[in-house]
Amino acid sequence: MASTESATTQSAGTAITPEDIAARGVKADEDIARYALMLGDDSLILAQRLGHWISRAPELEEDVALGNIALDLLGHARFFLTYAGTAWDRSEDDLAYFRDEEQFRSCRLVEQENGDFGRTIARQLIFSYYQYELYRRLANSSDATLAAIAAKALKEVQYHQDHATQWSLRLGHGTEESARRLQEGFDVLWPYVGELFEDVEPIAALGNRAVAPSSLREDTMGRIVSALEEAGMTVPDAKPAYGSDRTGRFSEQRGYILAEMQVLARQHPGATW
Amino acid sequence: MASTESATTQSAGTAITPEDIAARGVKADEDIARYALMLGDDSLILAQRLGHWISRAPELEEDVALGNIALDLLGHARFFLTYAGTAWDRSEDDLAYFRDEEQFRSCRLVEQENGDFGRTIARQLIFSYYQYELYRRLANSSDATLAAIAAKALKEVQYHQDHATQWSLRLGHGTEESARRLQEGFDVLWPYVGELFEDVEPIAALGNRAVAPSSLREDTMGRIVSALEEAGMTVPDAKPAYGSDRTGRFSEQRGYILAEMQVLARQHPGATW
Repeated sequence: MASTESATTQSAGTAITPEDIAARGVKADEDIARYALMLGDDSLILAQRLGHWISRAPELEEDVALGNIALDLLGHARFFLTYAGTAWDRSEDDLAYFRDEEQFRSCRLVEQENGDFGRTIARQLIFSYYQYELYRRLANSSDATLAAIAAKALKEVQYHQDHATQWSLRLGHGTEESARRLQEGFDVLWPYVGELFEDVEPIAALGNRAVAPSSLREDTMGRIVSALEEAGMTVPDAKPAYGSDRTGRFSEQRGYILAEMQVLARQHPGATW
Repeated sequence: MASTESATTQSAGTAITPEDIAARGVKADEDIARYALMLGDDSLILAQRLGHWISRAPELEEDVALGNIALDLLGHARFFLTYAGTAWDRSEDDLAYFRDEEQFRSCRLVEQENGDFGRTIARQLIFSYYQYELYRRLANSSDATLAAIAAKALKEVQYHQDHATQWSLRLGHGTEESARRLQEGFDVLWPYVGELFEDVEPIAALGNRAVAPSSLREDTMGRIVSALEEAGMTVPDAKPAYGSDRTGRFSEQRGYILAEMQVLARQHPGATW
């Protein structure tokens, strides 16, 4: 199991690091930067959410697994934020800790509360399937930096997808209670699924450099619905939540998440720690 | 940097897994099991503490680094608890989630609150130096399982030690404020250092299978004091906290830590999730 491997003493086998991107001297233009922010913020916020499971999962092995997934997502966020920052001469930390909540571009799905373990797995299933389909295509972006980040992230998201699939089967076909909780997770989260596939600004302007979310919808939803059915779940019949442009409207949870994430950096702005 | 590597897609290069230990059919005797519990509980509790930094560190890279360290420690805890459990036919999860606070054997140093980042780094420095010296010797234990676990953990603890050393230099020679906070961390934690080197029961009975904590004291404290001095810190002049047998007396924090860790498993005892 990956979960028993060392988290800190891995051999370096991967191509790029956030530092490479900063050092490479490639500058993102404004539109690419806004797109990269959107991608990075999703991963950053979900990482914060999942990190909370580190001392609260139902098995020690699961503590480790969810922690690993959180750290993968943080790693992806660092790449995207570093790249976005090249457009404005801002560092990843500056973008993570010194933007206000209305400047984040995360989707509402990742901002939702963890809820119980069933709901967290429901969120993981939806979001990892979405990210898998997204990164699979983005790896062919004509923007070489985005393509490289996506290719690196894809391998990890594939694991996240497998993890969510296995758990949804286990919960869905476990006890009556575990199936009920998983179903409740999908029911609560379903109104936020549609937002993932909206062609928000500035994606249309990016052409082959980005992946239009609407182009992912059919494949992704088909696979998510199959996964739900295999886990014995009912596909929810829920209206999309109002508003979905990833800019003006966001969940009230975002403020709490950011408060926790930003407090230390803001107490000591520019400090050496 | 290790911190930018994937946490989930590592190639398997390490020798043993907790599952191997369980599958191997080696049974720990009662004394070895109690010793393994002591080692495992230290890592388990510290992992819980460090996991809380995942959304609260002063840099994104640091979020990842502390998260990685937490997961390493959780991994070590899983090994020790699995091995201990062979003596009583109990699983690692059973030992982690269904012992009460008076049955844990963790030292009080790891139970102390995180405090600010300076205090956390002070705790990391003391504890990683202690674990490094311990595992270095335990890797030669005549108990083959303990020796294998220690050898595996040693490589990771070496990274933890480097991480704490680098941060203590950075904070100690950073701003006046960062140096003050690091010093305060050492001052607050110093009364709990002596406990690490007490030859508590049943270590004396284990002979070459264990490492007597008292035999680590000189080397470990010498290195810790040097590290403090290099960071510009004053070695605290603090009396040891009363009581240090790792059994009867424990910090009141332990109860809170365990409550958080055990709530989900205890709500659904024996459940498939």
